[in-house]
Amino acid sequence: MSSTYGKIIKIATFGESHGVGIGVVLEGCPAGIALDTDFIQYELDRRKPGQSRITTQRREADEFEVLSGVFEGKTTGTPIALLIRNQDQRSKDYSHIATQFRPSHADYTYQAKYGLRDYRGGGRSSARETAARVAAGAVAKMILQHAGISVNAYVSQVGKLRLEKTYQEMDLAQTEENAVRCPDPEMAQRMYDYIDETRKKGDSIGGVVTCVIQGTPAGLGEPVFDKLHADLGKAMLSINAVKGFEYGSGFSGVELYGSEHNDAFYTDETGKVRTKTNNSGGILGGISNGEDIYFRVAFKPVATIMQDQDSVNEAGEAVKVQGKGRHDPCVVPRAVPIVEAMAALVIADFYMRHKATQL
Amino acid sequence: MSSTYGKIIKIATFGESHGVGIGVVLEGCPAGIALDTDFIQYELDRRKPGQSRITTQRREADEFEVLSGVFEGKTTGTPIALLIRNQDQRSKDYSHIATQFRPSHADYTYQAKYGLRDYRGGGRSSARETAARVAAGAVAKMILQHAGISVNAYVSQVGKLRLEKTYQEMDLAQTEENAVRCPDPEMAQRMYDYIDETRKKGDSIGGVVTCVIQGTPAGLGEPVFDKLHADLGKAMLSINAVKGFEYGSGFSGVELYGSEHNDAFYTDETGKVRTKTNNSGGILGGISNGEDIYFRVAFKPVATIMQDQDSVNEAGEAVKVQGKGRHDPCVVPRAVPIVEAMAALVIADFYMRHKATQL
Amino acid sequence: MSSTYGKIIKIATFGESHGVGIGVVLEGCPAGIALDTDFIQYELDRRKPGQSRITTQRREADEFEVLSGVFEGKTTGTPIALLIRNQDQRSKDYSHIATQFRPSHADYTYQAKYGLRDYRGGGRSSARETAARVAAGAVAKMILQHAGISVNAYVSQVGKLRLEKTYQEMDLAQTEENAVRCPDPEMAQRMYDYIDETRKKGDSIGGVVTCVIQGTPAGLGEPVFDKLHADLGKAMLSINAVKGFEYGSGFSGVELYGSEHNDAFYTDETGKVRTKTNNSGGILGGISNGEDIYFRVAFKPVATIMQDQDSVNEAGEAVKVQGKGRHDPCVVPRAVPIVEAMAALVIADFYMRHKATQL
Amino acid sequence: MSSTYGKIIKIATFGESHGVGIGVVLEGCPAGIALDTDFIQYELDRRKPGQSRITTQRREADEFEVLSGVFEGKTTGTPIALLIRNQDQRSKDYSHIATQFRPSHADYTYQAKYGLRDYRGGGRSSARETAARVAAGAVAKMILQHAGISVNAYVSQVGKLRLEKTYQEMDLAQTEENAVRCPDPEMAQRMYDYIDETRKKGDSIGGVVTCVIQGTPAGLGEPVFDKLHADLGKAMLSINAVKGFEYGSGFSGVELYGSEHNDAFYTDETGKVRTKTNNSGGILGGISNGEDIYFRVAFKPVATIMQDQDSVNEAGEAVKVQGKGRHDPCVVPRAVPIVEAMAALVIADFYMRHKATQL
Repeated sequence: MSSTYGKIIKIATFGESHGVGIGVVLEGCPAGIALDTDFIQYELDRRKPGQSRITTQRREADEFEVLSGVFEGKTTGTPIALLIRNQDQRSKDYSHIATQFRPSHADYTYQAKYGLRDYRGGGRSSARETAARVAAGAVAKMILQHAGISVNAYVSQVGKLRLEKTYQEMDLAQTEENAVRCPDPEMAQRMYDYIDETRKKGDSIGGVVTCVIQGTPAGLGEPVFDKLHADLGKAMLSINAVKGFEYGSGFSGVELYGSEHNDAFYTDETGKVRTKTNNSGGILGGISNGEDIYFRVAFKPVATIMQDQDSVNEAGEAVKVQGKGRHDPCVVPRAVPIVEAMAALVIADFYMRHKATQL
Repeated sequence: MSSTYGKIIKIATFGESHGVGIGVVLEGCPAGIALDTDFIQYELDRRKPGQSRITTQRREADEFEVLSGVFEGKTTGTPIALLIRNQDQRSKDYSHIATQFRPSHADYTYQAKYGLRDYRGGGRSSARETAARVAAGAVAKMILQHAGISVNAYVSQVGKLRLEKTYQEMDLAQTEENAVRCPDPEMAQRMYDYIDETRKKGDSIGGVVTCVIQGTPAGLGEPVFDKLHADLGKAMLSINAVKGFEYGSGFSGVELYGSEHNDAFYTDETGKVRTKTNNSGGILGGISNGEDIYFRVAFKPVATIMQDQDSVNEAGEAVKVQGKGRHDPCVVPRAVPIVEAMAALVIADFYMRHKATQL
Repeated sequence: MSSTYGKIIKIATFGESHGVGIGVVLEGCPAGIALDTDFIQYELDRRKPGQSRITTQRREADEFEVLSGVFEGKTTGTPIALLIRNQDQRSKDYSHIATQFRPSHADYTYQAKYGLRDYRGGGRSSARETAARVAAGAVAKMILQHAGISVNAYVSQVGKLRLEKTYQEMDLAQTEENAVRCPDPEMAQRMYDYIDETRKKGDSIGGVVTCVIQGTPAGLGEPVFDKLHADLGKAMLSINAVKGFEYGSGFSGVELYGSEHNDAFYTDETGKVRTKTNNSGGILGGISNGEDIYFRVAFKPVATIMQDQDSVNEAGEAVKVQGKGRHDPCVVPRAVPIVEAMAALVIADFYMRHKATQL
Repeated sequence: MSSTYGKIIKIATFGESHGVGIGVVLEGCPAGIALDTDFIQYELDRRKPGQSRITTQRREADEFEVLSGVFEGKTTGTPIALLIRNQDQRSKDYSHIATQFRPSHADYTYQAKYGLRDYRGGGRSSARETAARVAAGAVAKMILQHAGISVNAYVSQVGKLRLEKTYQEMDLAQTEENAVRCPDPEMAQRMYDYIDETRKKGDSIGGVVTCVIQGTPAGLGEPVFDKLHADLGKAMLSINAVKGFEYGSGFSGVELYGSEHNDAFYTDETGKVRTKTNNSGGILGGISNGEDIYFRVAFKPVATIMQDQDSVNEAGEAVKVQGKGRHDPCVVPRAVPIVEAMAALVIADFYMRHKATQL
């Protein structure tokens, strides 16, 4: 129940941080799509550890194997299984937490729920699981490409450094030009320096990823519970370390009057119904209206820090948890492809679901 | 697919704003619970229109009928169906929008998706549907009572008026003492006046509802996709007018260092593992840790305002949509029981799901 | 979980034999279908009690109310809720079984599962629930009509009286011409007499319903677990009193050699790929091949008989359960529309699901 | 949607006959179960090809790799992924059917549904997929062992050779003593000879597998749609080549009077409520009553035969499909562990689901 996502385009992920590997089974991909394995690898490379000084030093090539669902280079409509084997798993780095609970990690809650846990690197609770999502998301992007829909995310905040420019004021193609994945080069440099300083202090810092979906036709999303933004929100909140989600005007929109917030309709020169403003974030009543969909995702500071911390062990005794292991001082640069992957999966799912509602 | 929510405790709602009525089928309720129909009515009364000068003047008694699932006052384990008939449906108030799209309403997107729509009061897209959720949520609260879990929400922001006190600093029993549902009497009055002024201007304003869940044992929630906060987030984002969700430290947590944000564990005098702070909002890795769960939900200003607005009609022609119909100048006072209802449904669902993971 | 069926066209039923009524919420019906309420009533009338001497004498008009999902006579794409209120509920007829378990009824197993039960007429376990299915099935038939697909069932066996003619050898329009619903008039009369004799003895007898689905395009059904016949089978086995399901050659096919059983392909004059024989029952690998789909459903003799039977009460003491209450001496004549309803729901679901697999 | 089965204990299979391999992700397994990999291999060996002269000569060791979900030999509550790589894939044996449709295979329907297909050995439609089910079923059996529930299947019919003895009259431990998997040694020999003769003729023959589930407590199964036997039926019908399912008295029960068919309750010496007969097959109203559950599954003759057959190619032209490739002359001996696996998965799922219905 818990490792499965989606209704038509459906993924089931498996694997642990320090087990054999990480994988995903993607069901519901239409037949006849040319599977671009280079693109899947490209997306995995965007997420993989060891990309720069400000990401974790764990070394993983994150190469994947296609186990099923493809014949002569094309999807067959049957489940696509992808496997990424773990390589650089220094499990002994974790022996000190075999019986200790790291603060703000899932060690304690997994123990409480299951009575035992794979403590090595957090086991199943590790963000390493998101590699599987990124691989599946790459397939979802291929589906969306057929529909002319694009998904682009970027870092818009690190700690108190908040990018005030909107996505329309920047060239999103710049996102991949720097290690932080912020499309504003000057801000990117400030963020980089800030993260690097944080790293040197043995600490971590939070951030925000903004995501923009363009090219969505009007009509995607389902009324009531499966509103488009509700599923986007769930998908984002399911990513490790996420603490908040807002779309369109979001939390700041609560301060506006209705007369300020409402998006007036007009018909453009091509005869298409458009809105003059987009406080709605491209979604009305849970259904896309054809405008850009955009949202922000808040990530807390990574729980692993290079400092000793107060905690307890399985026996309930007070302990000092040592600051050990490899970690990211700030998760958002690597979170960008994860946010895109989950967004692509949600939109692709609704795109296919929409077909099932049309006579 | 879209009007159903939950995995074990599962609801399916139906009905439109100006049709026969609104209803819900709740499946998965354990047998043997005394169904307190007075309590269901009490919860519906908290949500119903016409409560005060600052809510819509539509008159609905919102009385319900139990259609099934109860025998000799007790739940039988079979589906509980509840029906609330509509009464004060001045449908003719809506004839002017039969072919016009109201800005920031779902008129246009329903038309785009389905090719036709029940335009009367928004039809299925109306927040009237949430009456069904509140009725179901009342049942969920009865289940949670057996588990010693309580759910309490309150208004924490209206426009720019933001309550700075935390929930621990107030008496939540005060929430029902005023029309705004803010447990701080002084702030409640300021909010009330602000909403009333907004109403007189024929405008609307947004707000925030905060919710606190207490008494949850450690272990609820499922890893990976069905994280406890991910499902809470989806449930909240599925409520009409919601634009954002954050739990624990939320968006403000991104500005903290890990060393500031991490919640240190300790063992309390009863031998229970606790955390000294609660930036985690009671959830680690998607699973409850036994601390209070708390979150904030952002509501946009109501789209209906008493002002003429630019828009288009079904033919794509520019029109002025008249400011007509009855509406709430600010939705958050009535949203409080809705937020509680959805939270109760999510927690009850995870409470029952958890049992299914234990050998 | 248990009162919901389908993936896209999805129904949730509710209600008990002697409660307020029986109902259904049908989700996923495409928008724009003219809802023929006369047809729904016609189908309900085919299932309703009191049709002839060989059906139960309970008097129920089985009139229904449309609670939602329809606007100006057309479906809107939102949930369609239908309610049938109970009328002739002589609940006191059941007081003798308040603490006794009727043999081969669900009294004991509901008690074991839930710790309490609505004993009146079997409560939720009563076949009265199937009225809701028939109403929903009528809507499914309207969807199928748009696709040129028809569903026709008939009684092919009562006790040892087995109709040897195939469906191609009879005029299925004759099915409704007699009380037994057997399209062979001579056999119908023999079956009628047999059932009536059984009734006079205070006994009951089993039977078989055969169903034929025509006009299905090739390609419906999903590989592996959701094979078209697997879902048809589950749907049929979910009907009260059903003990078996077989499609195409069924159980008798096991006696054939592959060289006898295989259906050779050919291309007909219109260029369509056809099979010369149809042992496959119109389904290959779980996917329709465009030939007629046909299957047989076995119904046990009704458990209620007008004879005293050995049993135990809730305390485990030996008792004689009296032969009381109203019942059908043979369920298959009234089961015909139920089988059709469930078949129509399954096919309509796959018809809409198929769209979601096409790019 | 189509490669996933179950609600709590949930499997997703992947893989093709002549691709990289076959695999399964099993979710919902409780934590703390010692994973007996030898037992998984034992079950796979029971299903694997090349066991005797009467099974296909394809050589597959069917060794598996545990990819996730296990730590220090115990299940962790997270998804268990198992991978079986293909070895003996003589894909060129299938080049002759690259554009031809084999009679009574799924070649044509996959082509119609997806517009392309992996023709090698049937691709995804091959019964090789059931290796994944058997591996998952072995895990399900480990769960059931904790509950004291056993699942045993055997061959009860091959062609016209039908075993008249009931399961109580035989020693089911004998089932594995012969290549046919019939617990009656004398009948087993007759069946063996009959299959071998059929093989020599280049033909195939159908059969029936009977399955018995013992030790189930009263209360498993869900009312209405997810009746225990309805899900068992769907699971069985999802197995390749299955044409029918009946439980308890099944199709033969339709010939009985209610007075003959009803199972009288009594209380045994231990105070347990029992039934004197078991025409109900251990299930009343879709819920287990504590008696043995038993059912029969009909398998058609294997579609691959060593004879030339009439068919058409993708262009619709008449062709002779050659009798080539390796195949089983009768599928039931190898189907025994598959039937057990699916039954174990269904029962384990209901066993865990039942917990979620108890307060």
